Amino acid sequence: MENIKGMKRTRYCGEFRPEHIGENATVFGWVQRMRNLGGLIFVDLRDRSGVVQCTFDEAINKELFDKAFTVRSEFVLAISGTVRSRGEGAINDKLPTGGVEILADEIRILSKANTTPFEIVEDSDVNDVLRLKYRYLDLRRPDMQRTIALRHRIAKIARDYYDENGFYEIETPILTKSTPEGARDYLVPSRVHPGKFYALPQSPQQYKQLLMLAGFDRYIQITRCFRDEDLRADRQPEFTQIDLEMSFVDVDDVIAVNEGFIARLFRDIHGIELERPFMRMPYAEAMDRFGSDKPDLRFGYELKNISDIVANTEFKVFSGAIEAGGSVRLINVNGGGATFKRKEIDALGEFVKTYRAKGLAWMKFTDGEMTSSFAKFLSDAEIAAIKDRAQAGDNDLILVVADAKDDVVFASLGALRCECAKRMNVIDKNDYKILWVTDFPLFEYDEEEERYVAKHHPFTSPRDEDIDLLDTHPEKVCAKAYDIVINGSEAGGGSIRIHDSALQAKMFKALGFTEEKANEQFGHLIEAFSYGAPPHGGLAFGLDRLVMLISGRESIRDVIAFPKVQNASELMMASPDVVDEKQLKELHIALDLPEKE
Amino acid sequence: MENIKGMKRTRYCGEFRPEHIGENATVFGWVQRMRNLGGLIFVDLRDRSGVVQCTFDEAINKELFDKAFTVRSEFVLAISGTVRSRGEGAINDKLPTGGVEILADEIRILSKANTTPFEIVEDSDVNDVLRLKYRYLDLRRPDMQRTIALRHRIAKIARDYYDENGFYEIETPILTKSTPEGARDYLVPSRVHPGKFYALPQSPQQYKQLLMLAGFDRYIQITRCFRDEDLRADRQPEFTQIDLEMSFVDVDDVIAVNEGFIARLFRDIHGIELERPFMRMPYAEAMDRFGSDKPDLRFGYELKNISDIVANTEFKVFSGAIEAGGSVRLINVNGGGATFKRKEIDALGEFVKTYRAKGLAWMKFTDGEMTSSFAKFLSDAEIAAIKDRAQAGDNDLILVVADAKDDVVFASLGALRCECAKRMNVIDKNDYKILWVTDFPLFEYDEEEERYVAKHHPFTSPRDEDIDLLDTHPEKVCAKAYDIVINGSEAGGGSIRIHDSALQAKMFKALGFTEEKANEQFGHLIEAFSYGAPPHGGLAFGLDRLVMLISGRESIRDVIAFPKVQNASELMMASPDVVDEKQLKELHIALDLPEKE
Repeated sequence: MENIKGMKRTRYCGEFRPEHIGENATVFGWVQRMRNLGGLIFVDLRDRSGVVQCTFDEAINKELFDKAFTVRSEFVLAISGTVRSRGEGAINDKLPTGGVEILADEIRILSKANTTPFEIVEDSDVNDVLRLKYRYLDLRRPDMQRTIALRHRIAKIARDYYDENGFYEIETPILTKSTPEGARDYLVPSRVHPGKFYALPQSPQQYKQLLMLAGFDRYIQITRCFRDEDLRADRQPEFTQIDLEMSFVDVDDVIAVNEGFIARLFRDIHGIELERPFMRMPYAEAMDRFGSDKPDLRFGYELKNISDIVANTEFKVFSGAIEAGGSVRLINVNGGGATFKRKEIDALGEFVKTYRAKGLAWMKFTDGEMTSSFAKFLSDAEIAAIKDRAQAGDNDLILVVADAKDDVVFASLGALRCECAKRMNVIDKNDYKILWVTDFPLFEYDEEEERYVAKHHPFTSPRDEDIDLLDTHPEKVCAKAYDIVINGSEAGGGSIRIHDSALQAKMFKALGFTEEKANEQFGHLIEAFSYGAPPHGGLAFGLDRLVMLISGRESIRDVIAFPKVQNASELMMASPDVVDEKQLKELHIALDLPEKE
Repeated sequence: MENIKGMKRTRYCGEFRPEHIGENATVFGWVQRMRNLGGLIFVDLRDRSGVVQCTFDEAINKELFDKAFTVRSEFVLAISGTVRSRGEGAINDKLPTGGVEILADEIRILSKANTTPFEIVEDSDVNDVLRLKYRYLDLRRPDMQRTIALRHRIAKIARDYYDENGFYEIETPILTKSTPEGARDYLVPSRVHPGKFYALPQSPQQYKQLLMLAGFDRYIQITRCFRDEDLRADRQPEFTQIDLEMSFVDVDDVIAVNEGFIARLFRDIHGIELERPFMRMPYAEAMDRFGSDKPDLRFGYELKNISDIVANTEFKVFSGAIEAGGSVRLINVNGGGATFKRKEIDALGEFVKTYRAKGLAWMKFTDGEMTSSFAKFLSDAEIAAIKDRAQAGDNDLILVVADAKDDVVFASLGALRCECAKRMNVIDKNDYKILWVTDFPLFEYDEEEERYVAKHHPFTSPRDEDIDLLDTHPEKVCAKAYDIVINGSEAGGGSIRIHDSALQAKMFKALGFTEEKANEQFGHLIEAFSYGAPPHGGLAFGLDRLVMLISGRESIRDVIAFPKVQNASELMMASPDVVDEKQLKELHIALDLPEKE
């Protein structure tokens, strides 16, 4: 193979423009394609910035022409020459470099290439397994190049912004300790301490609070976190958080700083000036209006409670749900009357069943006529009241869920409104609706454990005005917790922490911890707080999620260079894998395999 | 406890200066100390920036004074007041804020504090175990605060610099695959794939090369690496690398970019303009002149080979070593004649034995007289020749090592010259001597395996001019490898990689790999290289080491927020720790403990 000795890149391939005509150019890259037009060879050379056409003219240099004729797709080349105009008819408007070409006077073949298992082009429909096995080829595709470059840019803006605002990036350990509550830990056997294990962190939560106790005042870290859970489509066993914590703050301070970051991102990347302050919505309102704690505000279809209207109806599906302590709520899919045929409405009925709803009632107004699955059971007055509550007019579709559990009504209608919006195609992809959801409940009742558990974690502070309710009505206590929601996705969340030992003790008591159990599990933290603790709070953004939201990518795998698949394996390196018996011996562990595996 | 409602910090404590006199001030922080001078109470309040004196005057506000009287060291306070001059006699020149104080008109106690196990002051001589168990208190000490802040600054400069130079930060997996060669891996059992394991990366070497194959052109990542080795004083099981890789480059390109980074660091942090280009020294010369591949150039004491002079002497310690294929070399410790008494020279003799030298011969010139441990065995002409070669004059001390193995001579004299420099106190701590050591041998002979092994890794490229030697004289082949050495410490190192399949095959052959074995171990990489590979190379800096060099800290534990101790445990969290039987069961492993443990 030849080498690049004496050659220096003058520009990346994608940067050539008409103003560079006449320049001497040297480019390095991969052959996108080679075309021989008889006497003229065109080599499209690609690097991370784009593609430039390099031209070899047989009449000018036969030897060079012949050499160019030997190249194939994905060969790696160094080409020198002169930038010239493509001339009238040859201009390619679709290509940023389409007005010019490089008339080559040198070509070096730096590496040959076998035929790749798939073509390196934008948006190819190659299957995922092949893409991930040959990830280094998949990443050559322009859309993947752009996404990974954007991810770098987002992380860089985060670091710049928080640095400018006085945050120190401080690294916390990856080899740390298994935590008793929360998701399943990845464990790492210790060779030096037989029978003991490190755990990979689910988040640096405890460390960042200790950094506040240590007086660092403002901490940030873009860091890997680990959860050994059964993967959903949008989860990875290792994922990246923009994790931060601040001292001497309350809710408004944390929100203000982080709002600034999101505004900066949208300004720098999309050129969008977001209106500030962002909207804030209490959790209770978000559930009531949108059936979700991460409402997508780019469209309407808000939930309406019609329990008062149908509480005494003879239709038992409705009145029974209310009697059992639940509710009856609807959404009005404006304009959905024509779009959704009977069959599609039946499909929506199946859809809500995945959220444990027992069924979907509907009412539709088309061409002045009303059809409905349930109207026949209701009085005219009840129907009129429902139509009025839904503000339904001609061509609208009302969808109703009734259940003895509010949770089920919210979850199913919350998901349904998003699903309908998608099918109605009412979502503007270039619109960004951002809000803070605040005042989450501090506790949720764990039916299995028959006690209240912390909705976030046991160090989350209650609202000042709710502290007295801790002993008497824990279910009514709201937390100083906040999530930032972008277009219906949770981009980040956090809380103010408890820094007062007396309040922390009250909290443990509400969670049903004895003093002994609290000390056993959190003794080192409780002790740490006894040496002078500042008020503090923080937040973590999911970087993968942020990149998805900003790039418009729909799969988390597309925003991570080397992602894992649903069964937590990585296809390119083929990890995890078996290891030597000797390695296990050194770690004082043995395999304990399920039978017949 | 009280809260900060309605209060906003106006400045950090350490920022107050005479130009702020008259300002309304609000500060948050920890009580460094409280002094009651009868009618006046002084509270020194500390945050990450420093300390400011807050004054409470009984005559002005008795209630406030009484409240201030209740505070103790490490209480967390919020104080408001007015900045005023301290007045003539009270000015403290040692404190940056020593010209002013805040006359308090409000104090809130945000958190009380128990008596800390050690005092929070600079350079306290608390033992390491206590410091690490209460790391959150140790980190409150001003020197630790400065060091962690400096670490943040260094990482930020790195990210800025490489971003400006077109590098993308791209994250590579932490859960990856065990590599057959190299140090011991940390393993992570897979729950989903019984009997299989992830490994934590020793470095992202393979991934970063694959990123070059993927066309990203310039990659950087500040990332955690893991090695399960028995720790030396300056090693940690997890450590941080500034890891980078570039495409379409040769040695000079990689060196130029990274030299720019080091120059930027010294400019931004120390205000030092380093002379560029940095010195380069081939490995062979570094060994010959300094007995080390990481020479400290802040002092002389260079090695001189006197084998030619003593080859035929009757003194068998010298001539025998040469006959056996070794050498006799010396250093001249200028001015050491008076400093080193017999007893101390004997101690140096013990010192070199730790480097496997059999002993230390010496010759000393004081007050016109020569004394020596070996001169009596040599002729006058030989002595004169040695004195001349050493350029020794009055008050000098010549130290000689003879051994049948050059390695031993180099290692012992290389270490000895540093030890002597320390004892002679000739090292200027504010001097920085930086060089590139280049042209490392590509192979080293592994006596155990009876074959050549790669000195760096099997993808390191030989020098172009040495390729033909691969088959015939592998021991003579130099690598395109380079280390950057600062004041005798290796701050980073890297190489140009092989990108040509034919050359890689030659390399595997020289390493004694059959084609089958090469494919088994590196098949996925070999295949990757077959689809078009750019010339590429890179480098990794040890971030921990860089922070040590720039901060002047002597222990790696002082530059890491939460370090591990020699036995790889972390004392604050007490990790590693035992885990539940249930967790192991889920991971398909069982303990296999050594007996009697």
